[in-house]
Amino acid sequence: MKVQIPRGTQDILPGQAKIWQWLEEKMREVTNKYHFEEIRTPIFEHTEIFARGVGDTTDIVQKEMYSFQDRSGRDLTLRPEGTAAVVRSFVENKMYGDPNQPVKLFYIGPMFRYERPQSGRYRQFVQFGVEALGSQDPAIDAEVISLAMNIYREAGLKNVHLVINSLGDKESRAKHREALINHFRPRIGEFCEDCQNRLEKNPLRILDCKVDREHELMKTAPSILEYLNDESKVYFDKVCQYLTDLGIEYTIDSTLVRGLDYYNATTFEIMSSAPGFGAITTLCGGGRYNGLVEEFGGPETPGIGFALSIERLIAALEAEQVQPDIHNGLDFYVVALGERAKDYSVKLLSELRNNGFSADRDYTGRKMKAQLKSADRLHAKFVVIIGEDELDAGIVQLKNMETGEQKEIKLATFIEEIKQFAV
Amino acid sequence: MKVQIPRGTQDILPGQAKIWQWLEEKMREVTNKYHFEEIRTPIFEHTEIFARGVGDTTDIVQKEMYSFQDRSGRDLTLRPEGTAAVVRSFVENKMYGDPNQPVKLFYIGPMFRYERPQSGRYRQFVQFGVEALGSQDPAIDAEVISLAMNIYREAGLKNVHLVINSLGDKESRAKHREALINHFRPRIGEFCEDCQNRLEKNPLRILDCKVDREHELMKTAPSILEYLNDESKVYFDKVCQYLTDLGIEYTIDSTLVRGLDYYNATTFEIMSSAPGFGAITTLCGGGRYNGLVEEFGGPETPGIGFALSIERLIAALEAEQVQPDIHNGLDFYVVALGERAKDYSVKLLSELRNNGFSADRDYTGRKMKAQLKSADRLHAKFVVIIGEDELDAGIVQLKNMETGEQKEIKLATFIEEIKQFAV
Repeated sequence: MKVQIPRGTQDILPGQAKIWQWLEEKMREVTNKYHFEEIRTPIFEHTEIFARGVGDTTDIVQKEMYSFQDRSGRDLTLRPEGTAAVVRSFVENKMYGDPNQPVKLFYIGPMFRYERPQSGRYRQFVQFGVEALGSQDPAIDAEVISLAMNIYREAGLKNVHLVINSLGDKESRAKHREALINHFRPRIGEFCEDCQNRLEKNPLRILDCKVDREHELMKTAPSILEYLNDESKVYFDKVCQYLTDLGIEYTIDSTLVRGLDYYNATTFEIMSSAPGFGAITTLCGGGRYNGLVEEFGGPETPGIGFALSIERLIAALEAEQVQPDIHNGLDFYVVALGERAKDYSVKLLSELRNNGFSADRDYTGRKMKAQLKSADRLHAKFVVIIGEDELDAGIVQLKNMETGEQKEIKLATFIEEIKQFAV
Repeated sequence: MKVQIPRGTQDILPGQAKIWQWLEEKMREVTNKYHFEEIRTPIFEHTEIFARGVGDTTDIVQKEMYSFQDRSGRDLTLRPEGTAAVVRSFVENKMYGDPNQPVKLFYIGPMFRYERPQSGRYRQFVQFGVEALGSQDPAIDAEVISLAMNIYREAGLKNVHLVINSLGDKESRAKHREALINHFRPRIGEFCEDCQNRLEKNPLRILDCKVDREHELMKTAPSILEYLNDESKVYFDKVCQYLTDLGIEYTIDSTLVRGLDYYNATTFEIMSSAPGFGAITTLCGGGRYNGLVEEFGGPETPGIGFALSIERLIAALEAEQVQPDIHNGLDFYVVALGERAKDYSVKLLSELRNNGFSADRDYTGRKMKAQLKSADRLHAKFVVIIGEDELDAGIVQLKNMETGEQKEIKLATFIEEIKQFAV
């Protein structure tokens, strides 16, 4: 049997898992301050949720989904991103009827895309994301962006920068679309087959084609910013003003179109500029998706959100050599010698744990010296030594591993005594 | 488009998610005290991991797996349980070479079984589980069981009870197997087709057949406990003795065989005896799986673990009417009136959050009265009111929502002042 993890996925082993826990804790703290609440949707959805939500002409839907049929022939897909599922849940659970609007949600969970695995890119990866549904106020755009920036700041990253753009409203987009078609049509034969299909269906998608990114027409393509109508322009200016008020620096990049069909108005990415971070510098992407709730059969509801990959955040921490503030180490390691002392240690461990301490012992019949070595390796603060003699005398030896100090303690008052100095 | 969650799955919405977060926190605390560390394996594995690990003749593998092929034709399966994947990771990452033995791991994550959905049973459900690999000491069996009982106690459940059994070692099992075949063979024609197939392949599986559970031969089937050899008996007695030492009550039930092939020696279940809990009373199941590491190509390594469903734990909390200790509520709600005050509130919110407070405001253009209502609904502790006049005068109104007390605060010293009494 090939005992092997599936290609493009990873095990997160204990040492690494502590970094994940630390980051998740940060994310919970930040979302709590911004008053976003957690939602958890299933790992898979009906395939049409993504086909419709993310967009039929996107690379994600066309090439990267893990789709399958269940035993009743239902078409299901492992979620490739979080927004479509959250919007499905918003509509299905009629959250638009909640008196607290906008509905501010966050999620953390695995996503799945069948892409070529490379450094920092996995087929299963974990996204943290937020969605604010029900407000069309530029202040909520700024809030969502500020939340993302705050996560990176709290994690300790210094070299991140924000890039923003506006894709405008329907009217602006329609004009831009026309300009794009006129721009690419005369030489569309020089583009890949996907782009040729995109020309009429969704010319905006040509701009994020991975195959043709070096074509000269890409650089001269009409900018959406030139086609924004007044309303879209005023909205975008206000978002930018709020960012400035919040002390958040940004660059405007009119080629930022994001690889998902549902975006409009504000879009943004946060990139790492840490030296040595690697080819994929995008840490986080998001934007407005007014219209998506209606697409799913809900009432007209504006929305904005972002998603960030925790794997890339960790890669950025490594590139910047940020040391997570993780507390390791055991409070007590119990060294028991002889059968009776070992039996007794079961109770002793239980008492320690019931009093809030972390505690462990040997379970492999090691000798005293090897047990002390284990205590050392596990960074135990204290070692409790108990043998048959000690047991008969009703005492234990307690050793402070930091100072090396050792003293005798009565078993009868053990917990009371250690509570005084082991805190 | 059918905007619907897949059958047998559920959305965990914000109110419910708080209970999950609270339980997960408890689990992290308890596992930390017992010195188990987190591992995260992928959502899917190569199908053969489960076919081989869980067992070809089990219901899980035969009827309940979500299996599919990826775009390269790999046979993958959404994990139906956690142990096989953890053991795969243990072998693949050579954790048997870690100087710290046993390797004590825990996991929390979604599992998938295509079963008929019913109350308390989902097709996607979340399991918390632990695995201790590398020790054959009855004390670790007792530790693992005690950890499970502790989780329920910390969650506040009172009506849980432990059922244990021993399936013995290879020798004991071989003798019992023979006795089972002799017992069922004469009347195997009266059993379902699955059981007829199981007779020679794996007669133990007959005992947990859902179809034939009422057949009279089930009640008179030879008990494994009568076939335990001396070594197995001594081991089991020791586990029982430790449980007694720890003050953990238990019932021995020789029909407890668990629906997974990998179990041997100690097996156990924890059941809810809360009135009105429903038909499925098992909250947690586990046991020893000596031999599984070898099955996956690793060196001889004993193992023991358990898994519990968080959905069922929550159902048990509801049945016992346990109120989770959850702190809701916002620190500050900012009521801004007029365009300039609204713009200013963006900065004010940011300052509050940067100082560790949770804060929110209106983003839907509500009038003052409606904003105050929002603050109330969100259980805000304080409301900050700011209008154009206040802004010009450099002040805000601060209202304590509990006492109703209202006072004026200078904007210049706002954060300093509120820090003194809003903690």
